[in-house]
Amino acid sequence: MTRRQVHLNVNILNAGVFGGSWRFPGTDPVASFTLDHYVRIARRAEEATFDAVFLADGPAIREDLRYRPFNSLEPSVVLAAVAAATRRVGLIATLSSSYNDPYDVARRFASLDQLSGGRSGWNVVTTAGTEAAANFGYDAEPEHAARYERAAEFVEVVRKLWNSWEPDALLGDKANRRFADPGKIHPAAHHGARFDVEGALNVPRSPQGEPVVVQAGASKDGRALAARVGEVIFTAAQTEDEADEYYRDIKSRAVALGRRAEDVVILPGLSTVIGATEAQAAERRELLAELVPPEYALARLASQLGVEQDALALDSPLPWHLLADPDEAGGSQTFYKIALGLARRENLTVRQLLRRLGGGAGHRIVTGTPEQIADAIIDWVDKGIADGFNLMPDVLPGGFDDFVDGVVPILRRRGVFRTEYSGTTLRDHLGLRTPDHVARRHEGAA
Amino acid sequence: MTRRQVHLNVNILNAGVFGGSWRFPGTDPVASFTLDHYVRIARRAEEATFDAVFLADGPAIREDLRYRPFNSLEPSVVLAAVAAATRRVGLIATLSSSYNDPYDVARRFASLDQLSGGRSGWNVVTTAGTEAAANFGYDAEPEHAARYERAAEFVEVVRKLWNSWEPDALLGDKANRRFADPGKIHPAAHHGARFDVEGALNVPRSPQGEPVVVQAGASKDGRALAARVGEVIFTAAQTEDEADEYYRDIKSRAVALGRRAEDVVILPGLSTVIGATEAQAAERRELLAELVPPEYALARLASQLGVEQDALALDSPLPWHLLADPDEAGGSQTFYKIALGLARRENLTVRQLLRRLGGGAGHRIVTGTPEQIADAIIDWVDKGIADGFNLMPDVLPGGFDDFVDGVVPILRRRGVFRTEYSGTTLRDHLGLRTPDHVARRHEGAA
Repeated sequence: MTRRQVHLNVNILNAGVFGGSWRFPGTDPVASFTLDHYVRIARRAEEATFDAVFLADGPAIREDLRYRPFNSLEPSVVLAAVAAATRRVGLIATLSSSYNDPYDVARRFASLDQLSGGRSGWNVVTTAGTEAAANFGYDAEPEHAARYERAAEFVEVVRKLWNSWEPDALLGDKANRRFADPGKIHPAAHHGARFDVEGALNVPRSPQGEPVVVQAGASKDGRALAARVGEVIFTAAQTEDEADEYYRDIKSRAVALGRRAEDVVILPGLSTVIGATEAQAAERRELLAELVPPEYALARLASQLGVEQDALALDSPLPWHLLADPDEAGGSQTFYKIALGLARRENLTVRQLLRRLGGGAGHRIVTGTPEQIADAIIDWVDKGIADGFNLMPDVLPGGFDDFVDGVVPILRRRGVFRTEYSGTTLRDHLGLRTPDHVARRHEGAA
Repeated sequence: MTRRQVHLNVNILNAGVFGGSWRFPGTDPVASFTLDHYVRIARRAEEATFDAVFLADGPAIREDLRYRPFNSLEPSVVLAAVAAATRRVGLIATLSSSYNDPYDVARRFASLDQLSGGRSGWNVVTTAGTEAAANFGYDAEPEHAARYERAAEFVEVVRKLWNSWEPDALLGDKANRRFADPGKIHPAAHHGARFDVEGALNVPRSPQGEPVVVQAGASKDGRALAARVGEVIFTAAQTEDEADEYYRDIKSRAVALGRRAEDVVILPGLSTVIGATEAQAAERRELLAELVPPEYALARLASQLGVEQDALALDSPLPWHLLADPDEAGGSQTFYKIALGLARRENLTVRQLLRRLGGGAGHRIVTGTPEQIADAIIDWVDKGIADGFNLMPDVLPGGFDDFVDGVVPILRRRGVFRTEYSGTTLRDHLGLRTPDHVARRHEGAA
């Protein structure tokens, strides 16, 4: 019997997931502004038969730029460039449903899918924060529920646009002078609460039917959206219980909505700190902690928790009386829930919590030898609480090289990870079926 | 004394500028949906030391898809992929100022500029047509003047964003743990009639200072915009008089606005039909005409002129009494003016006009041997009525190969076209200076 297979994406988070990654010895601190950085990592990911490379995003500066890199280059542009330098690895880019138009988003991912031979995926995010809002003409961040309602309709429109061309609508028939068959091209004709989009899309149907839709909902609204539209779902889980609860909740929600459980691939985030020995891994982890100025770490945590910096004392517990119920908090609820859960469960001081978070978004950090990392990965997949992981190496590209060289061979030896791609599209890699074309009626259409 | 140098872009218009290009013998009719098509042409352009490759665009289907290819893949995504496959050639993509947000556009071009080492250019268009409007939630095309007012403010915001980082704001100073200097990063803090954009942009200053701004204004509003913001200006001119009038008008408008004449590079469109002999060129031209179904050509012209198809009779003159004054016409005034000028000047029947237009947007078509094409190019540049041309080969890639193999060596031999790139950025190729950083006051900024 075949063992459950592991799916792996690599998240190219600038110089690495840790706040001090850019200062790590040997790291080029500004490499993430160059194409070579992305191409180098994507080629290694392809060599290691990863499902995809992944780019997070937000259209605003939210970090304190004195201390670390930040979301910068626009992901669809970066991954288009990466597409030209790779052949098989999937390409997942984040674009906001709050600050874009559905026609443009549908078109950019359909274009990326054409150019890459069917390797594109769209990570739908609703984009927390007033900074982004202020870059798009809004005084304040749109209300949480409103962002999710918009996201749901946004994805609906995008999918209608992706279905505007029947698979055989493009002919290119020179002899019979028929370039395309307009009878097989249908307007989206979407007229909803938030969007009016006529269509049709001006890009033929995607090589993989539709680009893969990725989501990372953590809040109540977010989980509902993920279960409804997500084909790959990122999550942050520090413990088996959290992972198990999320996995079962999302899959059962999806099934309740008429989807098949296997049409949803759930990938928790996994930050790795790899050493040849346990001691070396621990030493690396120690160095990564030291590279983050403590005054910065404290200010960032205060901002993420929505409290004044004065309310946090390094050697005291969190100021629980000041913290909102996670479901009531605005902003990114993923981080909020994870951080509070971690601090409460392990009774951490602020200093200890900062160390556990590593300057990241609250994802699980595993420190150890390649064997230990492989064990951690296989354990959750075997237990059926993850379909694989969204890998966030501590330092890029070095920490990812260590994973490819050290961990991937172990996963392959144990028969849980492919040794070569069996298909050509991102859907093939993920084991997701190609969606049937959704025929549209012409109701209300021109 | 050095002769005036020729600047050349190649416009990758799907399978070529003619309506029947996709049916030309040897042409792959659906190549323009593949990355290889763009990479192949861009690499040849680079080998021939062209200034740039250029992609037109419109976010809607406007063509009758039965008969010809259409604007499809999103240009910034396509050129990002091309960036990874080339090293020197410039990359100019069209994006609409009517159906995008300034922060997103500023960011995509700044990203493309980072990835390509300073080779990006943005062709600002206002996008005529109800089809595009209906894809972005509008019942009708925004009024002509309103589109140009929006475009002017849009470019202003984009440039503020491109200037939000001082050239030395990015530090990457590991030892002193300073990633960037926030004192050198400024909000755009734009609060205008149409846009409120706080900034700063989350991309450091472009390798070429700012991406190059390209414009193609033909109407009164369009010329005003081109003279104000355009660094490269595309135009359609059928005759020396038209080219001369446009060239002098734009340069003098620019100078009146405080710009230097040499900061504006004016490139008329040039469609080429090349044959080893005059007879072969004429034969090729004949075949290209035959490949367009006449019923389609007639319907398209009627639509472009805004009249019913019944109003056009193939062997009669244009129905002048039905045609609006070009300045009053909506839609693309470039085409309208050119077509009417051509028909009136040469007293053409509808059939003759269709043949002269070749199914394109009204650009000048030169048919002949490589020597004749080179003569035509040098003539206008020597006369000071063009700084070079926006080349639109009849058939792609074949017609462009003929240009590179046949015409470029002649231009080089005559000393009017570079034999190698002297610089690395698009600005270098165009002879445009790198703009000084525009310091922003913090007025009204956070």
